[in-house]
Amino acid sequence: MEKSELSDRLRAVRAGAPLVHCITNFVTVNDCANIILAAGGNPSMPFDAREVEEAVAGADALVLNLGAVDWLDAMVLAGKRANALGIPVVLDPVAAGVTQLRRDASRQLLEEVRFAAVRGNASEIRTLALGCAAGSGVDVAAADAVTEDTLPRAVELCRRLARERGTVAVISGPTDILSDGETTLLLRNGCATMSRITGSGCMVTSLMGAFCGAGREAPLAAAAAAMAVMGLAGEQAEALRLERGTGNASFRTDLIDHVFTMTEQDLEGGARCEVYQG
Amino acid sequence: MEKSELSDRLRAVRAGAPLVHCITNFVTVNDCANIILAAGGNPSMPFDAREVEEAVAGADALVLNLGAVDWLDAMVLAGKRANALGIPVVLDPVAAGVTQLRRDASRQLLEEVRFAAVRGNASEIRTLALGCAAGSGVDVAAADAVTEDTLPRAVELCRRLARERGTVAVISGPTDILSDGETTLLLRNGCATMSRITGSGCMVTSLMGAFCGAGREAPLAAAAAAMAVMGLAGEQAEALRLERGTGNASFRTDLIDHVFTMTEQDLEGGARCEVYQG
Amino acid sequence: MEKSELSDRLRAVRAGAPLVHCITNFVTVNDCANIILAAGGNPSMPFDAREVEEAVAGADALVLNLGAVDWLDAMVLAGKRANALGIPVVLDPVAAGVTQLRRDASRQLLEEVRFAAVRGNASEIRTLALGCAAGSGVDVAAADAVTEDTLPRAVELCRRLARERGTVAVISGPTDILSDGETTLLLRNGCATMSRITGSGCMVTSLMGAFCGAGREAPLAAAAAAMAVMGLAGEQAEALRLERGTGNASFRTDLIDHVFTMTEQDLEGGARCEVYQG
Repeated sequence: MEKSELSDRLRAVRAGAPLVHCITNFVTVNDCANIILAAGGNPSMPFDAREVEEAVAGADALVLNLGAVDWLDAMVLAGKRANALGIPVVLDPVAAGVTQLRRDASRQLLEEVRFAAVRGNASEIRTLALGCAAGSGVDVAAADAVTEDTLPRAVELCRRLARERGTVAVISGPTDILSDGETTLLLRNGCATMSRITGSGCMVTSLMGAFCGAGREAPLAAAAAAMAVMGLAGEQAEALRLERGTGNASFRTDLIDHVFTMTEQDLEGGARCEVYQG
Repeated sequence: MEKSELSDRLRAVRAGAPLVHCITNFVTVNDCANIILAAGGNPSMPFDAREVEEAVAGADALVLNLGAVDWLDAMVLAGKRANALGIPVVLDPVAAGVTQLRRDASRQLLEEVRFAAVRGNASEIRTLALGCAAGSGVDVAAADAVTEDTLPRAVELCRRLARERGTVAVISGPTDILSDGETTLLLRNGCATMSRITGSGCMVTSLMGAFCGAGREAPLAAAAAAMAVMGLAGEQAEALRLERGTGNASFRTDLIDHVFTMTEQDLEGGARCEVYQG
Repeated sequence: MEKSELSDRLRAVRAGAPLVHCITNFVTVNDCANIILAAGGNPSMPFDAREVEEAVAGADALVLNLGAVDWLDAMVLAGKRANALGIPVVLDPVAAGVTQLRRDASRQLLEEVRFAAVRGNASEIRTLALGCAAGSGVDVAAADAVTEDTLPRAVELCRRLARERGTVAVISGPTDILSDGETTLLLRNGCATMSRITGSGCMVTSLMGAFCGAGREAPLAAAAAAMAVMGLAGEQAEALRLERGTGNASFRTDLIDHVFTMTEQDLEGGARCEVYQG
């Protein structure tokens, strides 16, 4: 993938100012809204089942976050309505493997809603692809962490989910894997401090909503651009953190700031994206 | 309106430390609480219908935010109780025109609760005044945006809502319009970056709760002071953002900080408030 | 208590990276998650009664915050499951005395769940110990504020709750009182600006979850270390605030940052902790 394809996606978000409807958990909802705004989109957060179909009809993209499993009915209604209207839907299967409630809910969502993209950590994507339990909490289980050795197996899982569901599947981690079933990309941006704030995953999925909303014609590039913008903003924020000796709270602020200030040149210069050959 | 009337209102908040009960959406609730604290008030956020009447009885003001439409029953109970006790109630009709659920809820609130002040964008206030649908998402619809040309019509709408409901009606935008039905004020503080963070509207309505709670005798001046403090803090935060090359997340932090540090002199020196002649 | 006992507790959190399950209010949940991460733990926030038992089974500690009184059923289920598994449970009785709903809920929690630690302000702890109503809003009532004169009475209340419930009881304020019924500690860290942000109390209770999760064998030292880390981070953030002339929003960011950057040496050098003789 040419780097200009990534910066094209960023330009499209800034030009299109997509309205991104999110049904998401309240732990990180404020950060999700602010990072959508930082990228150039506009967030919309209604979650009441009585109004989501009407609200989503005016949106350019829909993001469903399994952390909002309490509002599963609203997620299904909104997802179906978005599908009917051709509005791209993005799924973040937060902690999908951790409880039976979430395994059931994620299976139902995959069966009733078509997703333009699905992004999770390796444990979450494994659960979606194979239906199995995995992990505790919201972080990837140690056994699922992708290393250079296990990369081919993780790519296979990612492709499988992409093909079975007709979606762009994304496993995020130190190396991100993105696949539409045909083309598979590896992305090596980001930093470890991103896992020391809450909501890095939720935020990048929200960005993905904005990028897919402004780039329906190129969902793989849209997903890759969202991941690259987030990872690169993380690297820029980490450089500031190390320079200033600050902590994770400043890092969170700086990360969102760097999404706001990121230029197309920054993105082309900093993205480390390659097509996976294998 | 003399500028000293605005600074009197700020002094009253700092002296009175009003307890502001908010029933508000979870997207921006943390920012609402912190900006009330920044101004000198104290926030209280219970939303359970079983306890809001008891909780609001100890408060100095009540803020109802339509983003919390899920808890409409609690809003109505709290509003009626506040009315019975003479506690001022402020309404933020977030996205009032976007869905039927919100149009119905805002109509019910206006019918069952008396409001000291109602603050929304032009689309939201138009919906309240005329009962019509308007817009997508939480931002003002392009067709409703107030320009110098459409200002007289917007003022008329604002006055109409104020008179019909016996309230201070506020349309916020690049030029804010405030009216108690007799006197109409125009306020020209603020900056465009305020629309690049989530919660600017919710926050200023929360401030309005604090200012009305500490200034029941002067609701128009209280509402104007809250708007002026917010707009001026936004200008100060924007100056920092431009100087530092930072983004919307730093801007949010700096905006709340500047409410915290704002002096009466800052407010008198910076407020751009005039009585509308027409 | 030797200061090395406090720094031992901090080291244990960093080494153990405890998974802290919180059922907490949405006003401050994001800050609670980020401060757990800052200390070296990992947060987990499911609150749905259908999944909390399963989710808590993988955690190292459980924090129940009465601000989430809407989800009382989930709190009770999670608390009982944690008790059965030997996972320490920490209670934050937010506004316990303010409404009948909260008085009933806190009584039920104390009867059905065993707590490793309970932390509240003087009004909240008095309500738990004596069953009485107290205060408005979330702050300590003026009549309950602990002074040097009323310290002995407050210590007695704290000990009583500790003995009756077999817990570490903590009254936080300018002087924190901690007691396991045998040993009573006084801690004099912190600053007044901590009461000008929302969530100082919720955050320190979340930290206490992390410290108890990584230190089941020493709950009094774990609770004291959590309080000391929070208070000291507050002092460090206040020094920055005064130097820079900033406000409460920067203070919140800096406070969490200083938990992130705090060293064992900082803690040993800065903690002002003494055994109460009386």
